[in-house]
Amino acid sequence: MITSDPWLLTPGPLTTSATVKQAMLRDWGSRDDAFIAMNERVRHRLVALANAEASHVCVPVQGSGTFAIEATIGTLVPKTSKLLVLVNGAYGKRMVRIAQVMRREVVAIETSEDRPVSPAAVQAMLRSDPLISHVAVVHCETTSGILNPIEEVAQVCASHARALIIDAMSTFGALPLDASKLQSQALVASANKCLEGVPGIGFAIIERYALKRSRGNAHSLSLDLEDQWRCFEANGQWRFTPPTHVLAAFDRALDELAAEGGIGMRLSRYRQNHDVLVEGMASLGFETLLPRALQAPIIVTFLLPADQGFVFERFYELLLRKGFVIYPGKLTIADSFRIGCIGRLGEAQMRAAVDAVRRTLGEMGITSGAPD
Amino acid sequence: MITSDPWLLTPGPLTTSATVKQAMLRDWGSRDDAFIAMNERVRHRLVALANAEASHVCVPVQGSGTFAIEATIGTLVPKTSKLLVLVNGAYGKRMVRIAQVMRREVVAIETSEDRPVSPAAVQAMLRSDPLISHVAVVHCETTSGILNPIEEVAQVCASHARALIIDAMSTFGALPLDASKLQSQALVASANKCLEGVPGIGFAIIERYALKRSRGNAHSLSLDLEDQWRCFEANGQWRFTPPTHVLAAFDRALDELAAEGGIGMRLSRYRQNHDVLVEGMASLGFETLLPRALQAPIIVTFLLPADQGFVFERFYELLLRKGFVIYPGKLTIADSFRIGCIGRLGEAQMRAAVDAVRRTLGEMGITSGAPD
Repeated sequence: MITSDPWLLTPGPLTTSATVKQAMLRDWGSRDDAFIAMNERVRHRLVALANAEASHVCVPVQGSGTFAIEATIGTLVPKTSKLLVLVNGAYGKRMVRIAQVMRREVVAIETSEDRPVSPAAVQAMLRSDPLISHVAVVHCETTSGILNPIEEVAQVCASHARALIIDAMSTFGALPLDASKLQSQALVASANKCLEGVPGIGFAIIERYALKRSRGNAHSLSLDLEDQWRCFEANGQWRFTPPTHVLAAFDRALDELAAEGGIGMRLSRYRQNHDVLVEGMASLGFETLLPRALQAPIIVTFLLPADQGFVFERFYELLLRKGFVIYPGKLTIADSFRIGCIGRLGEAQMRAAVDAVRRTLGEMGITSGAPD
Repeated sequence: MITSDPWLLTPGPLTTSATVKQAMLRDWGSRDDAFIAMNERVRHRLVALANAEASHVCVPVQGSGTFAIEATIGTLVPKTSKLLVLVNGAYGKRMVRIAQVMRREVVAIETSEDRPVSPAAVQAMLRSDPLISHVAVVHCETTSGILNPIEEVAQVCASHARALIIDAMSTFGALPLDASKLQSQALVASANKCLEGVPGIGFAIIERYALKRSRGNAHSLSLDLEDQWRCFEANGQWRFTPPTHVLAAFDRALDELAAEGGIGMRLSRYRQNHDVLVEGMASLGFETLLPRALQAPIIVTFLLPADQGFVFERFYELLLRKGFVIYPGKLTIADSFRIGCIGRLGEAQMRAAVDAVRRTLGEMGITSGAPD
């Protein structure tokens, strides 16, 4: 855990271990047996993390998480049906825009950024609109850090026989996600969040039969997950050049997840990171946007202090000089900033981060982080 | 140039320098000033390499070269017009398929894999079909290694006032490409070919006004280069998480291109690699698919030996054990294999590769690489 780089208290890209980065010090031939075996290993382990070996397959895709989300929607939602997106932040909104750009029919149920999405509203909508074939929901909306009730949403979808797509970008690898229990058609995530890899690869864990049925549906060749999956089935290879170094880092990151004790232990560490952060910030007067019950241990939104001397850009810069990168707010409903709890860091770094905030407030002449 | 990894004599991903890989040993915050400055530096240098600062801008995109090609076609070719693709190999064919999947009108002029595309045929087609707004051509078709006459194609396009998209994937950084002289609307390439970065980023050098006019045209949010460009203009940032480590390696690779003496010196090295390879292989009896005049110094297609004892898979495996990864053939017209000349390697490695081929033939009991 020694590095001269700043600690990234962000929702990803985040701080990865030195050994994950060192896994990139080799050039791989993308059609070589050793690389093909690495692909297979990564794909298998991701399906196993979702406890979905019997029913689902993993299809990785080059690019960011948004690429994987777009690829999943484009591959799975039929051109003749309709997508319902549950929106309580920027990432829900982005899924609506993705569907609009690819000219799929889409409707949204929007709730406030500090409120979870409503399973009851989903139920009413599904009852009234039989054209909706798919529902998409974000597990943890990093806009606020809120945890959405995906189990309840999944139950509603299952009882109405609609397919569910879960954006698990910022939770996969830390919060338990069981694709078969949730009956989700697809779980979508990326290498560089709770799995603690580097950015450049996203992936979807997709129900095998749904994927098979979707042949020829995609709006894009690059983002056609069914076409990519058939290629993996045929020869274990990517259709188009994969980010070989990023994949090697991902493989190593999955080793390190297992070595840490798996998802349960990672969640414990993130919970402790969260608790140290929130308690420490509270001792300085800061308040969180969300009550404890709605807060995922992934990223925390703090309300801006009432003190007129608080200028976020200066606060950010002074924290950076102390070795900590935080994240600006993304809320429309309140002025805020965010601090992440994920990545290769633990209690010591979170205590140091709180201490850096304390010293920074002192330098800025601010006596309390309390909001209005 | 010391490594225990095999040398990748492939068209990319290829062998990169140790220092390019070491540039990935740091985690970057993707919204941090230092990272934004790195983006800007990379984009600026790529435009400068195409001698296009006055007219063009660089828009990078996450993913492989194919992602960048699809993004460029999807962003630039209007939904109401038609794309003409010149095809003499797999990458030309892929552009046709990309356009078909995104439901753009597309026609192709196909020539044999061992013949350059025909400017005269383009001229005839453009005369007869005013609906064609864009022409797409591959500079070096790595299917065979052939160099296409893009200057002549560009002249024909310019004289008929049609826009030209050049797939310069395997030439950008080694063969001179002047976007303004060529009057190409877009040059598309990726980090992990002649620029000797690692895979995970592609880019297009696009005529600024054409890009401005293309707002809202794209079939995909992730692959909308106009939308991405506006974001770069506004705040220097990627819209969606970039592969930060890959970008850092790319920045370093561009430093090393400059240190080598730029495109001219890199081309000299690749030409020497090519000559050592082809002469050495000829001394063992191997023949190239293409005559010298059509051959780019990027990747060379060799015809399979007539000797019945030659089994490509065994040849590949024995060469791999000696530390060299070669590439299977991709031709439909002849049995063949390919050996690349690009990447961070020089005369010594090419001589060693030829020697490894010589020893491998001996192990296989083959006296000559001569084809039928």
